[in-house]
Amino acid sequence: MIVDSYEINEEDIFTWVKSNGARKVLIQAPDGLKKIALAVSELLEERDVRAFISASHAWGGCDVAYDEARSIGVDAIIHIGHHGPVWFKPPGKPRVLFLPAFSTLNPTRLVAQAAREAKDAGASSLAIVTTIQHAKWLPALKEAVASEGLEPITGSLSGVEGLIVGCNYASIRQADDVVVVAGGLFHALGAAIWSERPTWSADPYQEKVSRVELRNVVARRLYAISKAIDARSFLIVVSSKPGQNRVSLATRVKRTLEERGRRVLIAVFNEVTRELLENIQGFEAFVNTACPRLALDDEGVFPGPVLNPGELKYVLSGSVEGYSPRDALVFDLRLLDGP
Amino acid sequence: MIVDSYEINEEDIFTWVKSNGARKVLIQAPDGLKKIALAVSELLEERDVRAFISASHAWGGCDVAYDEARSIGVDAIIHIGHHGPVWFKPPGKPRVLFLPAFSTLNPTRLVAQAAREAKDAGASSLAIVTTIQHAKWLPALKEAVASEGLEPITGSLSGVEGLIVGCNYASIRQADDVVVVAGGLFHALGAAIWSERPTWSADPYQEKVSRVELRNVVARRLYAISKAIDARSFLIVVSSKPGQNRVSLATRVKRTLEERGRRVLIAVFNEVTRELLENIQGFEAFVNTACPRLALDDEGVFPGPVLNPGELKYVLSGSVEGYSPRDALVFDLRLLDGP
Repeated sequence: MIVDSYEINEEDIFTWVKSNGARKVLIQAPDGLKKIALAVSELLEERDVRAFISASHAWGGCDVAYDEARSIGVDAIIHIGHHGPVWFKPPGKPRVLFLPAFSTLNPTRLVAQAAREAKDAGASSLAIVTTIQHAKWLPALKEAVASEGLEPITGSLSGVEGLIVGCNYASIRQADDVVVVAGGLFHALGAAIWSERPTWSADPYQEKVSRVELRNVVARRLYAISKAIDARSFLIVVSSKPGQNRVSLATRVKRTLEERGRRVLIAVFNEVTRELLENIQGFEAFVNTACPRLALDDEGVFPGPVLNPGELKYVLSGSVEGYSPRDALVFDLRLLDGP
Repeated sequence: MIVDSYEINEEDIFTWVKSNGARKVLIQAPDGLKKIALAVSELLEERDVRAFISASHAWGGCDVAYDEARSIGVDAIIHIGHHGPVWFKPPGKPRVLFLPAFSTLNPTRLVAQAAREAKDAGASSLAIVTTIQHAKWLPALKEAVASEGLEPITGSLSGVEGLIVGCNYASIRQADDVVVVAGGLFHALGAAIWSERPTWSADPYQEKVSRVELRNVVARRLYAISKAIDARSFLIVVSSKPGQNRVSLATRVKRTLEERGRRVLIAVFNEVTRELLENIQGFEAFVNTACPRLALDDEGVFPGPVLNPGELKYVLSGSVEGYSPRDALVFDLRLLDGP
């Protein structure tokens, strides 16, 4: 079945529903793919399976609607548009089918263009990564890069070659430059922050190639960290989403900051919004243990300077010396053992 | 302990925490009382109980943060500012202490003024109701009403004399007029809709008495219902909040509308927002089985006409004949057995 420019494997759905004996299913999709969720709900209802739509955002494979499913007594979830669970081990129930939505838009020409630009800039190898939507094009993309005279480099994430998600770019292997196939600049920015290499965005929706600029992000991060160094009180943000829930890390951060004389409180959110944060008055800075992209891409949500856990070491040392943009995407607890 | 103009019983907290052996507690409060939640968190941490704040809204006794508590491994919740569970039976765990925050602002003078105005308008009896914040003043309020020469009338909800909550005004007993002690016009409006009697608001925060006008609300409801009569497709809103979850009702409504040839889908929300509703395209009207006040007070959240379950009978009969504002606050399933 094709919905807009996405291909969905109907047989995968029917096989999974049948083999799980599911009579009631909750269907989830990110905001941009809600139309696919509606189409899947119609497919299921035609086959006498009761379908419910989750209206919530579904930001990633970290954000599976277990709570909603349980609240309506459904033990089968179809989660569209993400490749699998991110940062958590799925419980046995409710069961989840992660259903990819593959883009039919061919990004080969764009990646070839990015390869030429990278070559002109002096690169001889190019790491290729994509979101799950574009992952099927990877063999063609490697060929296109090789045709332009660069060595195509790929790694894997969760067994999918070239796959990236918003908080994990570990599939980017050592290469001169990086090309990211995804809509918008969100993933290209993440790849540039992680790899610290020259990074090209190839956007199949806008049919546009552009080089990502990190300067603004780095300036904003350094400004936030510098302000947080002087803060006397911190609110630590914890998410209740299954793959964003880092309450142990938050507790550890709280203790560490308290030992340094800071006043600290942990607050629990489902969705982190400015409105909710503003209701909790009296904190000068924030530590975000939920989605790391909040601090990078939605910094304005926070009413004061916000740090990701990997950036906390600068507050503890009182200096931004040795700063690396990648710290924003790191959850390594050992960072807290710093000076 | 007094925080702003609210009195909190510290001993109740310590006794409950001790008798439940709680070492970790999640503290919830409605947005306007978050400051009390912060004060309670400090009290607990001083006694070596680990305190977490729920950043979410806590709209009522229907909105207890079980999911958040479970997500951080906490089995004790202190829920501030509501009198008890609304529309659901609490599970054994996590345990919940419903902790009232009693207003120290004396509303007696305001209620006496409302009584005089009601008397001038011809009333000889006056029903008195309050939110839990002002419930302690009830004996004084009854006296004040009697002093003005009217018969004070009170009923009970959940064992609390005069208590109202946003979706249940059953404590309003037969009287000529009604006076509502609460901040803002929200509860006075609810009381007027439910009682269909002349209703006075006595607002202790604004120190203001005013008579509630239903005309605008009724006009908006009739307009929404009339438009929904012609709708061919309906999205039914279901909430995942424990006391707002009416998935059985939603399923029944779906079947009823489908039998009348309408296309229907059920969508599940934690918080119902315009943004989330707009992501689900293709529905001409909405049935709201979550908080009934959404359709009355936040109608703008819905991108099309919205009905509460009790108003559905007009869509089924194709006419608004016999319309009663109280239908908006009724969940009686038998309404669906109509023509």
